[in-house]
Amino acid sequence: MKIYLDCIPCFLRQTIESARLTTDDELVHESITREVLRLTAEMDMDQSPPAIGQQIHRLIRSLAGNDDPYRTLKEKYNIMAMRLYSELAKKVRESINPIESAIRLAIAGNIIDLGVKTSLNESEVEDIIRKSLYQAFDNTDFDEFCGEIDKARDILYLADNAGEIVFDRLLIELLPLEKITVVVKGYPVINDATMQDAEFVGLTAITDVIDNGSDAPGTILETCSQRFQARFEQADLIIAKGQGNYETLSNSSKKIFFILKTKCPVIAKDLSCDIGTMVLRKGRF
Amino acid sequence: MKIYLDCIPCFLRQTIESARLTTDDELVHESITREVLRLTAEMDMDQSPPAIGQQIHRLIRSLAGNDDPYRTLKEKYNIMAMRLYSELAKKVRESINPIESAIRLAIAGNIIDLGVKTSLNESEVEDIIRKSLYQAFDNTDFDEFCGEIDKARDILYLADNAGEIVFDRLLIELLPLEKITVVVKGYPVINDATMQDAEFVGLTAITDVIDNGSDAPGTILETCSQRFQARFEQADLIIAKGQGNYETLSNSSKKIFFILKTKCPVIAKDLSCDIGTMVLRKGRF
Repeated sequence: MKIYLDCIPCFLRQTIESARLTTDDELVHESITREVLRLTAEMDMDQSPPAIGQQIHRLIRSLAGNDDPYRTLKEKYNIMAMRLYSELAKKVRESINPIESAIRLAIAGNIIDLGVKTSLNESEVEDIIRKSLYQAFDNTDFDEFCGEIDKARDILYLADNAGEIVFDRLLIELLPLEKITVVVKGYPVINDATMQDAEFVGLTAITDVIDNGSDAPGTILETCSQRFQARFEQADLIIAKGQGNYETLSNSSKKIFFILKTKCPVIAKDLSCDIGTMVLRKGRF
Repeated sequence: MKIYLDCIPCFLRQTIESARLTTDDELVHESITREVLRLTAEMDMDQSPPAIGQQIHRLIRSLAGNDDPYRTLKEKYNIMAMRLYSELAKKVRESINPIESAIRLAIAGNIIDLGVKTSLNESEVEDIIRKSLYQAFDNTDFDEFCGEIDKARDILYLADNAGEIVFDRLLIELLPLEKITVVVKGYPVINDATMQDAEFVGLTAITDVIDNGSDAPGTILETCSQRFQARFEQADLIIAKGQGNYETLSNSSKKIFFILKTKCPVIAKDLSCDIGTMVLRKGRF
């Protein structure tokens, strides 16, 4: 997906929120914002939005001198999600259609996206989770998704955010674990999950987890490690979680299923649905 | 009031909305947006937000080749407001406190601000007007306002937007008309009222109306005509309507009363009140 003009005010809002989270120094907030304005003024709009996100967050980390500004928040959301895990795992087991329930919960977890909304309290998260189990859900591609899982031999599950990966675990546990490799980011960017989060929430104990070698808030193959690129090439099915992975891989011809909640009007329009929709959508294969 | 970082995403949102309203050419939308990004990257943040607004809208008009892109919308809101005029004038006459009711309606009319919200339908406007008559209203400075009106010999009423000026008329008609001069903008900018609007809604028939010679969406004295600057200097009371006039005159030591509805978090914070508050507030005199 390319960058739309409407992404620009949002880049700026995210920049300011993230700068404030990263340092208390108002002069640094201002220089970060001015740098991002210069960057966006000259940007190539044919890139995907996370390509700019990657540059913006590099800038913020470098100008504020903080390698992982979202570390504390990532821990907070990991712990919050883990506290809900057993109860939700029970709900999934007892459900009429466990896979669909697990997908719904994985999508609900996608609300923990600090690029979209910096503050989010526990009751908001619980409320969204409760609603996700009965909210309308476009399951047009559900049967094909299940069929492709059965056929595949090598599945990559591209994770999105810390905290959210606990909800992904509910789904991953229902999949044939021997075929699954979970992919996290190579370096911190916003609250995207890294290996540290995968270990913390126990994902590494149940399945293979690798990192993609990149600090983009999505999957921009050319900025990923050679090793990950080869691994992506070799996989015969990709499950891509969240907006960032949709924005960066929506034009790919790989066999991809996207699982996300639409949280911005541009992405909702690109997917021809309303904001707030729970989406399981096959890619262009 | 200076520019805050939080104004920047809003400048960009306004730019894009306004560019789309002004021309259908998407390449022009993009070049306008890039120019505004360059402009804001290097701007002096000690200016008031309308100083940037002025530059942005000059840029939009010039790059899109349209001198008055909001002309049709201004006419629409003038007509919509005039349709409500008689009924509202009756409400004011029959009210226990006509001046307060007229101020409330003048504030309600301040919702017709296309810099803040591009589309606004008639039922929204009517709803806001109805609510304004009983909604909480900080009238701390009300008695002083009435006292200063009595004492003053030369009052400038700085108008804000087209459509809105019909609601201002309800208040102006209750003031000593021989002391009042209404001030409109010298050139089109967003949907700010110009002489054309003042004539259209009949304001020129009941009181003196002058223009300030400027195309800023507020009152930036140094960009106004010499004649208006002298007139401002000479006046002994100023009634300043709307956010733009507050942003540009809040630091003035002139005897000013601001009448507005807070429509953005930055201004609400500057005024120590919530968004959506109806405000009659004395200046720094």
